[in-house]
Amino acid sequence: MIPTLEWTSEGVRFLDQTRLPLEEIYVLATSYNDVATIIRDMIVRGAPAIGVSAAMGVALGVSRSQATSVETFQPEFNTICDVLAATRPTAVNLFWAIERMRQRFAELATQSGITMEKISDALTQEAQQMYGEDIAACKAMGAHGAELMPKSGTVLTHCNAGALATCGYGTALGVIRAAVERGHAINVFADETRPYLQGARLTAWELLHDNIPTTVLCDNMAASLMRQGNIQAVIVGADRIAANGDVANKIGTYGVAVLAREHGIPFYVAAPWSTIDLATATGDGIPIEQRPAREVTHFNDKQLTPNGAGIENPAFDVTPSKYVTAIITERGVLRAPYDQAMHNMLAEPASVSSN
Amino acid sequence: MIPTLEWTSEGVRFLDQTRLPLEEIYVLATSYNDVATIIRDMIVRGAPAIGVSAAMGVALGVSRSQATSVETFQPEFNTICDVLAATRPTAVNLFWAIERMRQRFAELATQSGITMEKISDALTQEAQQMYGEDIAACKAMGAHGAELMPKSGTVLTHCNAGALATCGYGTALGVIRAAVERGHAINVFADETRPYLQGARLTAWELLHDNIPTTVLCDNMAASLMRQGNIQAVIVGADRIAANGDVANKIGTYGVAVLAREHGIPFYVAAPWSTIDLATATGDGIPIEQRPAREVTHFNDKQLTPNGAGIENPAFDVTPSKYVTAIITERGVLRAPYDQAMHNMLAEPASVSSN
Repeated sequence: MIPTLEWTSEGVRFLDQTRLPLEEIYVLATSYNDVATIIRDMIVRGAPAIGVSAAMGVALGVSRSQATSVETFQPEFNTICDVLAATRPTAVNLFWAIERMRQRFAELATQSGITMEKISDALTQEAQQMYGEDIAACKAMGAHGAELMPKSGTVLTHCNAGALATCGYGTALGVIRAAVERGHAINVFADETRPYLQGARLTAWELLHDNIPTTVLCDNMAASLMRQGNIQAVIVGADRIAANGDVANKIGTYGVAVLAREHGIPFYVAAPWSTIDLATATGDGIPIEQRPAREVTHFNDKQLTPNGAGIENPAFDVTPSKYVTAIITERGVLRAPYDQAMHNMLAEPASVSSN
Repeated sequence: MIPTLEWTSEGVRFLDQTRLPLEEIYVLATSYNDVATIIRDMIVRGAPAIGVSAAMGVALGVSRSQATSVETFQPEFNTICDVLAATRPTAVNLFWAIERMRQRFAELATQSGITMEKISDALTQEAQQMYGEDIAACKAMGAHGAELMPKSGTVLTHCNAGALATCGYGTALGVIRAAVERGHAINVFADETRPYLQGARLTAWELLHDNIPTTVLCDNMAASLMRQGNIQAVIVGADRIAANGDVANKIGTYGVAVLAREHGIPFYVAAPWSTIDLATATGDGIPIEQRPAREVTHFNDKQLTPNGAGIENPAFDVTPSKYVTAIITERGVLRAPYDQAMHNMLAEPASVSSN
């Protein structure tokens, strides 16, 4: 199991994803501000992992508070949540996780005579439960999605929607892992995913760690490989899915989706239900984070572009639902029309227990 | 004028394109083997520039020969041509230029009593004439293509089909330059063009040199910008155009072409007639160079990918002619059906003098 993030007695421990694939370095967050910095600097990234990281950040903030009563703690609690919510704008799992922690705190705060220690214990338990749920959701996505993967062939993925983007196992890469465990002979093509190179650095690292053969390509090579018949399916994760099925995911996902449709290749999205934002009607309502220009202009300290050039660096794009063959969740597989499919699935009992 | 390559009394001088955009370093080739290395190592690149470089390499080889008679020189001449032809496989301009030098040599060799000195002078003159013709062709492409560019708006280009890919002015960037000279208000989006970053390093450098506003984006960002309506036209160069209009160009071109069509954006190719290979029926017959894996796995000395990952690194792809809105040549603008259009244009007198 790849230790993406972990609650420990000293704080929250993160595998530093900026140092992979050549160095496995761990960073210990001992305050909620540390967790916020770690999310903002992409030491941890990936929508589900960001969500659980934020929940652990809230729990860490509560456990380290000097407040002696719930009443005096309330403003501090709000600050903790606000600071963590301000780290990154696009992944809805971040806000979902913080909201869940807020609600749990509100429930606890109404209990007469409850101590800060009991609140801290309960919120720590809540965050750890979310950690376990995340892994269970990934395994359930794998079970639902495995049959959609080719029995043998090559699957393209973009960015990293793997163990490193979750608490373990992965969403898109979890589906690939589940298919491989069920005997499918799958090779993975990993888009390198500029500018942050999550595919080259993270996806290749974690799949090779599991002995799944992986080939890295520059993002601009997938089209030609599709035309040559070398790609049988595409699967990616998501940072936010609107109520109509539009998918926000790592920049470049939309282009891959268009190319997949042009070549008759199925395009799958794997994401936990917490990524679905029913309050946002369409992809047009999803805020897209702009990252610093330096991620594009420099590699480490080496400047790539001339002085004076403008720079684009949106971290995400939106893929309209018409390009999405199916959305794989822990509850099951959604197909268009997605609004209706989500509505129907919400009416069913959840297939994954939250305990 | 950007001094991409130049015949000098000491040899052929090249602007080292591996050092741009931060350093302007020149390399002097004093033998045909030097020229071959310079082409192979992409110190000079771009189909038209490669063609003229090879012609100058032939002239240089002839001028430096110790042979005293045409008869004893013939095997050496063949070697010179063969070494230069073996440098890169995809750009047909290379073979076209060497063939033109072979034919000129063959003509000269039949003249009774001709000296090596006269042959050398004539071949040097031929190579310099090709240099001048290349610039004239770029200017003519600019004149033909300018009216296809938007009066105001953003034009996307991929790789570098500019002054640095030719003897000056450029093919695709020549059309942009010509439009700007005619008063069009054009911003350029330059795909950074992994793995060699010709867009980030070269296109941005040479356009900013001419005060044309240029924004660099990662290759995977163009799709989203197209969907947002931020791109009005695409123009690229070509390394080889088959008889049916299929276009081999820098890897990633095909994906851009598919995306342009999906968004109703015109997709133009600008290339001199020497890029058209009537002997190759379709794009399937164009050999695609595979470049070393290290261009993808490393940036300078820093390794990006884990050990054990497979690597794809095709240098070019093929865009089927159905995605090409028009091909801009120095003789005029070709539109589908391309085989017929090429046939008709060949029947017309050339609009660009070769003198």
